This record gives sequence, C-alpha cells and structure tokens, in this order.
Amino acid sequence: MEININSIEEKLGYIFKNKEILIEALTHSSFVNENKMKAYESNERLEFLGDAVLNLVIGEYFYKKYPKDLEGSLSKMRAESVNEKVLYVLSKKLKLGELLRFGKGEIKNGGRNRESTLADALESLIGAIYLDSNFDTIKNIILKLFDKFLKEDNFKSFNIDFKTKFQEQAQKKGLKSEYKLVKEEGPDNDKVFYTELLLEGEVVGFGKGRTKKSSQQDAARDAFSRKGKDFG
Amino acid sequence: MEININSIEEKLGYIFKNKEILIEALTHSSFVNENKMKAYESNERLEFLGDAVLNLVIGEYFYKKYPKDLEGSLSKMRAESVNEKVLYVLSKKLKLGELLRFGKGEIKNGGRNRESTLADALESLIGAIYLDSNFDTIKNIILKLFDKFLKEDNFKSFNIDFKTKFQEQAQKKGLKSEYKLVKEEGPDNDKVFYTELLLEGEVVGFGKGRTKKSSQQDAARDAFSRKGKDFG
Repeated sequence: MEININSIEEKLGYIFKNKEILIEALTHSSFVNENKMKAYESNERLEFLGDAVLNLVIGEYFYKKYPKDLEGSLSKMRAESVNEKVLYVLSKKLKLGELLRFGKGEIKNGGRNRESTLADALESLIGAIYLDSNFDTIKNIILKLFDKFLKEDNFKSFNIDFKTKFQEQAQKKGLKSEYKLVKEEGPDNDKVFYTELLLEGEVVGFGKGRTKKSSQQDAARDAFSRKGKDFG
Repeated sequence: MEININSIEEKLGYIFKNKEILIEALTHSSFVNENKMKAYESNERLEFLGDAVLNLVIGEYFYKKYPKDLEGSLSKMRAESVNEKVLYVLSKKLKLGELLRFGKGEIKNGGRNRESTLADALESLIGAIYLDSNFDTIKNIILKLFDKFLKEDNFKSFNIDFKTKFQEQAQKKGLKSEYKLVKEEGPDNDKVFYTELLLEGEVVGFGKGRTKKSSQQDAARDAFSRKGKDFG
C-alpha cells in the first residue's frame, strides 16, 4: 500500500500531509460494506466535495479562455470536460483502479475497471487534495491534469462558427441539414428565439438566442455536443 | 451610482479593486440589449462563475458540519440553501434590485423585484468578488452572508432522525404513514434498497440506501424536502 501511495503522490506532484484522507479517497463503498465500516467512511463524501471543486476550476478556465462566450456555452463546455468518460480516462492514467480498496465481490464484478467508479474516485481524490491543502493548490493540480484534454481540438472548436462547421460535416456525408424557427418569446426589446436543427428531417439540435442567427449557432453547437464532432 | 457602489461595498465588507467588474455584475441583460452592447457584457457570465463558487463554499460548509452525512444528504442540503428563494431574500437584503442596471422595458415589467433576476445578480456579484480577490476572501463573505440562514432551524433538522420526525408530524395531523420496500438491487454483499413513503396512501417520498432502515430514513428526508418541514 505504501508504495502505491507514493506512486500516486508522484504522479500528482502532491504529497499529502494527512495520509488518512488519501486512503479515504481510495476507499470504495463496497470495501466499507464488506468490512462493516460506516457508510460515511467510503470516498462518496469526498466525491461530493471534489465535484464542486472541479466545476469551479474548469468553469473558471473556460470563463477566462472564452471572454465572449455566454453562460450556456460555458456550461456545455464544462459539462463535456468533466463528464464521466473524461474523468475515467484521467483516472486510468493515474492508475487509480489499482489503488482503490474494493470489496471482494466488487472486484469479481469488474469494479477496478468500472467507468463510473474510476471517474468518481478521481473526484474524491480532488476533494481530498483540496481539504489537505487549499484551493490554489488543487486548482493547479487540476489544470495540469486536464491540460492535454482541454487543449485538444474539441475545445478549440467551441469558439468558432458552429453553423459553418456543421454544414461542412453534413455536406461531406451527403446529409441535408435545415434550421427551423420553432418559437419566439418576449417583448420586442428582449426577444428570445428558439430554433431546431434538422438533419435528414430528424431533430439533432435545439438552440436559443437573442437573434435568429445566434439561436441557429446554439442549435448547431448543441448538435455537436449530442452527436460528437464528426457526428460520431 | 458612486454612492450606491459604496453602499454595497459597505454591506459586503469588501472594496473592489476593479470597479468595472462590479458594474458588470450589476448589469442585467435587458440593459445590454437596450443599449446595443454585446451580450457578453451583461452579468450572465459572472453568474455562471458565481454559481460554481457558491456551490463549493456551501458544499464544503455542509461537508464539514455533518461529517456523517452521505452525498445525497449533502447535495440536498446544499440545493435547499442556494435555491432561488434563498438567494432572492439575501439579494433583497443587499438591495441589489435598486443597484442593477436594467433596460427601461424590464423596469416597467417589474424586473427590479423579479425573484430570478435578483437571485442571479447575487451569484454574479459572488463571481465578481471571486475574480477581484481570491477564493478565501469570497468564501468568508459568502459564509457571513449565509450565516443566519444556515443556522436556522431548517438545517439543524437535517442531521436528526427523519423517520421519527416524520412520524411525529404525521401523528400530530392524524395522518397515516407507511413505508413500502419497492425494490432490492445488487449482490448480497452490496445491496441497495428502494423504499417509498406513503402518507394516506399517496407516495410522498422516495429513498434508497444500503439497508432497509437507511432507505426509509432517506425516504423520510425526501418527503420533508418535497413537502416542507411541517408538510407545508
């Protein structure tokens, strides 16, 4: 166990003052149940805290990176950055699965590789570091950890012209796309437009905005977020 | 305007280094629209950031205050503390409605007293202070601002025996309550129980837990969170 703790500390570039909180972050609920420990001794509480830390750090990252993006866009970028899949991949890199304490049954059931378990454990670890240090320390660790992912092409694309990009992809695949204004709301000086984006007649994105055009952009962005950047 | 800024700074006990960011936090989207400014010049972006700051600060507060509460309980307590109604009340205390810059149409429509607008503006203000200072500064300001609310009876009650409390309330009103186990999931060493709480035959709460008893507690807590502490 000792050696493993050293290895995770090395990967994170962070030495825990309180090793117990690191152990807690690495304790899956199945271990707690099997060993008749208290439910609150698993890593679930730390996960709750880590999730909030992560949302603030990644939210601030996008807030600063895209000074002209509105709340909806920032929320979506963040949601796509801290989703289970991304956290799972980062968790694998840190080899958290090998370190986690599981119940025997959970190991048999493949717990060491379960996407949600590994994603949750990373959030717990983030919560643990935050408590053991301070906000700026965990912020730097998170930004380093997510660095490569955040700089990948998928996020550059968020600040560009989604409509054009969607159009290009659709044409490449020989698919017909079309925008349909479905609703207008509010007084003249404060109107909101709602638009659907249809691909081959099927609704693939839904957008709102203060102009028709921005609602179309939003619909195209929404379509990408649902279907993936190459309509994956 | 100057005087008003001073008054809000005084109420918060915080002097902005960058007054422009305070102005941004006080700029409603209707003002931006009416004055043909850019959409990103309203307080919506800061609201996005402030929301995340608030979630972390209040989440940490409950995490530390209730060291035996699990994620579900912590999430619910937080959700009830940072909901629109609470933020609106605090926003009124700070008189944010009087300071906000609105479009003329929005003022006519009662914007200065709109619950969602005032709640959002408080989040924007929190985001602005965070950016203008640092995490610890805004954390202290938030905890001071929420202090009275967090210490009110509604939150003491969360750490106690919900089942007993629900039972007492029901008896007082002459209503019959009953728990119904509706599902069991998972292997023997890692079971999850799902329970409904019925009041006079109607489902009023839904709970899950690792034991039958904890799923009943969770259902009672859920019922309180839906119906209010006196079945409001």
